[in-house]
Amino acid sequence: MTASVIDGKATAATIRQEVARAVERLKAEAGLTPGLAVVLVGEDPASSIYVRNKNKQTVEAGMASFEHKLDEGTSEADLLALIDRLNADPAVNGILVQLPLPKQIDSAKVLAAIDPAKDVDGFHVVNAGRLATGQDALVPCTPLGCVILAKQTLGDLSGLEAVVVGRSNIVGKPVAQLLLQENCTVTIAHSRTKDLAATCRRADILIAAVGRPEMIKGDWVKPGATVIDVGINRIEGEGGKGKIVGDVAYDEAAAVAGHITPVPGGVGPMTIACLLRNTVTAAARQNGLSSPFAG
Amino acid sequence: MTASVIDGKATAATIRQEVARAVERLKAEAGLTPGLAVVLVGEDPASSIYVRNKNKQTVEAGMASFEHKLDEGTSEADLLALIDRLNADPAVNGILVQLPLPKQIDSAKVLAAIDPAKDVDGFHVVNAGRLATGQDALVPCTPLGCVILAKQTLGDLSGLEAVVVGRSNIVGKPVAQLLLQENCTVTIAHSRTKDLAATCRRADILIAAVGRPEMIKGDWVKPGATVIDVGINRIEGEGGKGKIVGDVAYDEAAAVAGHITPVPGGVGPMTIACLLRNTVTAAARQNGLSSPFAG
Repeated sequence: MTASVIDGKATAATIRQEVARAVERLKAEAGLTPGLAVVLVGEDPASSIYVRNKNKQTVEAGMASFEHKLDEGTSEADLLALIDRLNADPAVNGILVQLPLPKQIDSAKVLAAIDPAKDVDGFHVVNAGRLATGQDALVPCTPLGCVILAKQTLGDLSGLEAVVVGRSNIVGKPVAQLLLQENCTVTIAHSRTKDLAATCRRADILIAAVGRPEMIKGDWVKPGATVIDVGINRIEGEGGKGKIVGDVAYDEAAAVAGHITPVPGGVGPMTIACLLRNTVTAAARQNGLSSPFAG
Repeated sequence: MTASVIDGKATAATIRQEVARAVERLKAEAGLTPGLAVVLVGEDPASSIYVRNKNKQTVEAGMASFEHKLDEGTSEADLLALIDRLNADPAVNGILVQLPLPKQIDSAKVLAAIDPAKDVDGFHVVNAGRLATGQDALVPCTPLGCVILAKQTLGDLSGLEAVVVGRSNIVGKPVAQLLLQENCTVTIAHSRTKDLAATCRRADILIAAVGRPEMIKGDWVKPGATVIDVGINRIEGEGGKGKIVGDVAYDEAAAVAGHITPVPGGVGPMTIACLLRNTVTAAARQNGLSSPFAG
């Protein structure tokens, strides 16, 4: 068997189109232009690229983009004051603070200061709690992207065995909550799991979110399973050139799996698309409307 | 094999002693008497018995107990006003609103109004979020009781396969989070799980929290496993007399398991003991001290 490749780029493009249509409707029917504020402190080159992409895609979807670039030396108090202003600004429906922050700033304190209703990254404790208790939440973007890809590939996920490898707050734990909402039987595995290979082999849906290059081998994959690889690891490729690989040994796994996400081009492109989707959801809910997106 | 019986009554008594000692230390070293306010609306007989037991055990542990009995016809506004007063009262470290509430009152709204720092039931969304993200939380009492019993029975739980049957917000989901913190490989199973018997048979630790009398059969239990039964189901026994049974077919399971909680006398007595423990933890944290209890 050779797995069919799950095209995250194409799905992300479809989501961006859905977002653009939802934005048009909000403008026409509610006089509302969703707005996303992105805050970048310092000059980290990778962060700068992310922020530029986010702004570009926000504008392309018809939304307002507010970019706040602060000096590397910005104090925590000044950043918190900015967050307060953004919380109070009705034109701003979503607030994203690009991580990592410089070390004079306590990231946890800053994330906790964001109004949960505008927390489009879904990292605020109130959104984690709402997700954990099955209430309407703003859900972290990468987990949301994983589940959208799985549902698009498999349809109804009810009753399927899902195994999540990794238990981070930003991917592993929220993706487990989302899969549980989809009525999967969910196992969370991690570094202390005794027989990780056997645990992975139980999975109809295998989510790899450990951040270790090619750790999950082909014979850890159940024949026909759907493999969603969240890992983005930079390793040294041939001739000393940098190369991006996932947490799954792709070629081996693709020989066994039914469906598999590539790295890059799988989960990666979904993240910003889901950020835009969250911003529209946040804008709608802040104005007493329900989210225009299903599931 | 015949399972050894996990004595929840004895463990609960030990916890109450630990609580009483911690209260004495807080009084002597910090001049602090932890206080628990219990709010009962109406005359439900079962609720009245629970509240009486809670108050009695609170006082026996050396703490202050504040009982608020409100008329069945109390308005939501009046109850919310009481919650506000209790939130503001420094003598009250824990607030428990006995459920169910009469139907003119929105329970979710009332629970959300409790200061998360005083939410000793652990049902507030902020405590659910803190638990879900591995921060200090006030943890729901029954799940906490389950994990204390498992640790007391097995010691270090790291690497063990835990299967939680049931995904309620008050037991299944929080107990899964706690077992994950103990480094178990955790599976959450439920009504949509395809082969529930086989899934249960994987468990080194099996937590039954479905609320269906004797649903989990003896041959669903892995030989030697530790079985923690959260169910409290009233069924018709011999001669038409009422009888309390758990979610596990006890006699069958006890023939296979290594350790098992009885019903009654297993998880049940742990709940109030953990409530007292949470009240002391809340009192300590509200006064800038750390919880006197490990784990």
